Amino acid sequence: MGEKVNLVEKLGMFTEHWSPRVVGELNGQHVKLAKLLGEFDWHHHADEDELFLVLSGHLTLHLRDRIIELGEGEFFIVPRGVEHKPVAEEETHVLLLEPTSTLNTGNLRNERTIDAPPRI
Amino acid sequence: MGEKVNLVEKLGMFTEHWSPRVVGELNGQHVKLAKLLGEFDWHHHADEDELFLVLSGHLTLHLRDRIIELGEGEFFIVPRGVEHKPVAEEETHVLLLEPTSTLNTGNLRNERTIDAPPRI
Repeated sequence: MGEKVNLVEKLGMFTEHWSPRVVGELNGQHVKLAKLLGEFDWHHHADEDELFLVLSGHLTLHLRDRIIELGEGEFFIVPRGVEHKPVAEEETHVLLLEPTSTLNTGNLRNERTIDAPPRI
Repeated sequence: MGEKVNLVEKLGMFTEHWSPRVVGELNGQHVKLAKLLGEFDWHHHADEDELFLVLSGHLTLHLRDRIIELGEGEFFIVPRGVEHKPVAEEETHVLLLEPTSTLNTGNLRNERTIDAPPRI
């Protein structure tokens, strides 16, 4: 059985942006932490809903038809198939929840693609 | 498609203890908020892993072989089948993550059982 997870402690274990770390797994889902800064690519996940919870900072989630602004303590669930582009103008820390099969760049494969996010 | 969720705002919408509210759904999982105070019953969920993330307060998760103490910003995943008893000596607010099929009292059915937790 696992140990408890302290979010602040885990966030102190890495500095890279757009490089999620796995901190938990349940029911086929990964709980991940990520540090975001700047613009990510437009992408979608064909079969996976994705939750973004802002722990600190501010996340702008661009969708094709609207923009979602998330401050600390706010989350949004991007439904499967919906194109999105995360943008963080300041360093922003998020908790992600998504199936273990989820690729960070969704339908894209580029230099930002991380095939097996490390567990910390 | 859904709207963003502000955790503090949602927590302001109810006062009952041990009565989870559904605030999101993704990949067959419910995101729930609950206010805890006092002792809950020993129970287990046969087929469902359950995540407890403390948003404020302090949660003591009794397991049969150890005790997990969770402060703000800490989570623990109780694996399926593992008996647990949540105890909160002060009012404690938690975010729960578990399959939509999960019954709050697990294998028990008693006056605390909530068959269809309300969505807020």
